[in-house]
Amino acid sequence: MSDILFPRITLIGFGLIGSSLARVIRRDGLSGHIAVCARSQGTLDAAVRLELADSVTHSPEEAVKDADLVVICAPLGANKTIAKAMAPGLKKGCIVSDVGSVKQMVIDHVAPHLPDGVHLVPAHPVAGTEHSGPDAGFAELFDGHWCILTPKEDCDKAAVDRMAELWRRAGMTIEIMDARHHDQVLAITSHLPHMIAYTIVDTATGLESHLQQEVIKFSAGGFRDFTRIAASDPVMWRDVFLTNRDAVLEMLGRFLEDLSVLQRAIRVGDGKALEALFTRTRAIRRSIIDAGQETAAPDFGRAQTHEDKETGKTQGDLVKGAKG
Amino acid sequence: MSDILFPRITLIGFGLIGSSLARVIRRDGLSGHIAVCARSQGTLDAAVRLELADSVTHSPEEAVKDADLVVICAPLGANKTIAKAMAPGLKKGCIVSDVGSVKQMVIDHVAPHLPDGVHLVPAHPVAGTEHSGPDAGFAELFDGHWCILTPKEDCDKAAVDRMAELWRRAGMTIEIMDARHHDQVLAITSHLPHMIAYTIVDTATGLESHLQQEVIKFSAGGFRDFTRIAASDPVMWRDVFLTNRDAVLEMLGRFLEDLSVLQRAIRVGDGKALEALFTRTRAIRRSIIDAGQETAAPDFGRAQTHEDKETGKTQGDLVKGAKG
Repeated sequence: MSDILFPRITLIGFGLIGSSLARVIRRDGLSGHIAVCARSQGTLDAAVRLELADSVTHSPEEAVKDADLVVICAPLGANKTIAKAMAPGLKKGCIVSDVGSVKQMVIDHVAPHLPDGVHLVPAHPVAGTEHSGPDAGFAELFDGHWCILTPKEDCDKAAVDRMAELWRRAGMTIEIMDARHHDQVLAITSHLPHMIAYTIVDTATGLESHLQQEVIKFSAGGFRDFTRIAASDPVMWRDVFLTNRDAVLEMLGRFLEDLSVLQRAIRVGDGKALEALFTRTRAIRRSIIDAGQETAAPDFGRAQTHEDKETGKTQGDLVKGAKG
Repeated sequence: MSDILFPRITLIGFGLIGSSLARVIRRDGLSGHIAVCARSQGTLDAAVRLELADSVTHSPEEAVKDADLVVICAPLGANKTIAKAMAPGLKKGCIVSDVGSVKQMVIDHVAPHLPDGVHLVPAHPVAGTEHSGPDAGFAELFDGHWCILTPKEDCDKAAVDRMAELWRRAGMTIEIMDARHHDQVLAITSHLPHMIAYTIVDTATGLESHLQQEVIKFSAGGFRDFTRIAASDPVMWRDVFLTNRDAVLEMLGRFLEDLSVLQRAIRVGDGKALEALFTRTRAIRRSIIDAGQETAAPDFGRAQTHEDKETGKTQGDLVKGAKG
């Protein structure tokens, strides 16, 4: 039993991240009891079926009773409601954390409702896939990625260390950061990329219908890379944009300036400017691979995981001869 | 020797695509002689070292002597020069093709220089990786993807069939299309995505330096997906944008309209509009996976190919405690 970090852990919300965290806790025996709280009965049923919950309830107040750690794993927009509802059940010394992609609003929405003696240690494990829901989770999701903690300056040092240890056990490297700075960094590394990806997929969806079919067929030319992050959870991302609005709009402004420069270079046929830009952008991928945040395998290593190698053969009859 | 499709094949230009095609020809014994032509001595040396060339030369005219098939595998901007230079060496009945990402300009730049009795069958194998150069090639590159042929209406039917057969042997499915229509489809499936990816990587590169380091560290939140296509060959992409300008600017205009709508929804806090958009865009990825053009594995199957699983441990000492 020496591996137990928190005798009793409560997870409020149980999607991709919550269920993946539960799998880590189970795998490594990090807690004696996992209590799962969710609004939907289907989610609670899944937690039981997956054998990842020792108790389940719809009530946040009931769920957090006797908990040593409470991790909110719900969409950001639910934070305030959850904080209010669970507050009366929290015991002194409990750590409250979360997994949200925006951090200042967690402090704004959750901290005011917590009783004295409860420690708020907001966390953001920077990992995920385009799949969502409890069944999409897996224990290795966090492995090799960063987890950013954004405690307030006066937060209990021991509580921060205990949270750091939990995520380290999940395979993550810990970074401590100011919440507002976190929100600015994630605006460029995550929120703007999602905004752009959602938009280009939407543009393709709005094409004349004969073009739409061809977009799907010929997506290997680049488009399909964008569809992955544009398939992420809609409610989670709605809340990210609503809660990190200012930083996202600021980064979007910079992006639009740069896009105008490229647009102009194309319009006037400035080949030198284009080549210089495309050479400059090449280096950053190397840095990301060197930092261990990406695979160096070509095409993300897709060739090794591609499931349908038969396509080329079964569609051979599409050749109809020259149509001009 | 019954597998030979073309007794003598000449490849002009020998990067990722040219060398991958040569590997297919060698693997399946599709030609008795591969002649490689390139401007750089290093490229010719690589072709010899990789045992993918039976003869090498800097001269297009010499390279195409007695060739039954000539495939131009150079950046688009070199087409006109290559066509002029090789024209005197082409034998009657020879097929001239290419692998470029823009097709109308191939017809405009190459066709006028070809002698009578030579058949122009422009081709675009829609496959690639972010790596470039002869050493990056591999025979399976084309497997399961589409190859678009854009012959003119009066093109010899037998010549089109022979080109189709070559790419089918490489594992591709053939589509015949009008050249201008091809350029419009690729503008949205490939050229605009590259333009956007280059821009967002450039925006990140232009950040204040302390933010730049963090962009690399936390790129797993979405940004790294864009860096793959923004690491593609700079000269090839310069020429794509210069030669398909009108279609690219048209698609960019549509994208910018859609981006403005999303920007406004974020600014005014319209959660319903955001959720509706993010739900709509989810479906298209499913269609692409169902069409066999993408892996269904989460995160492109990166987990299986990630090379550096040690990151989480070796960087553990970065934890420095709360900085507020």
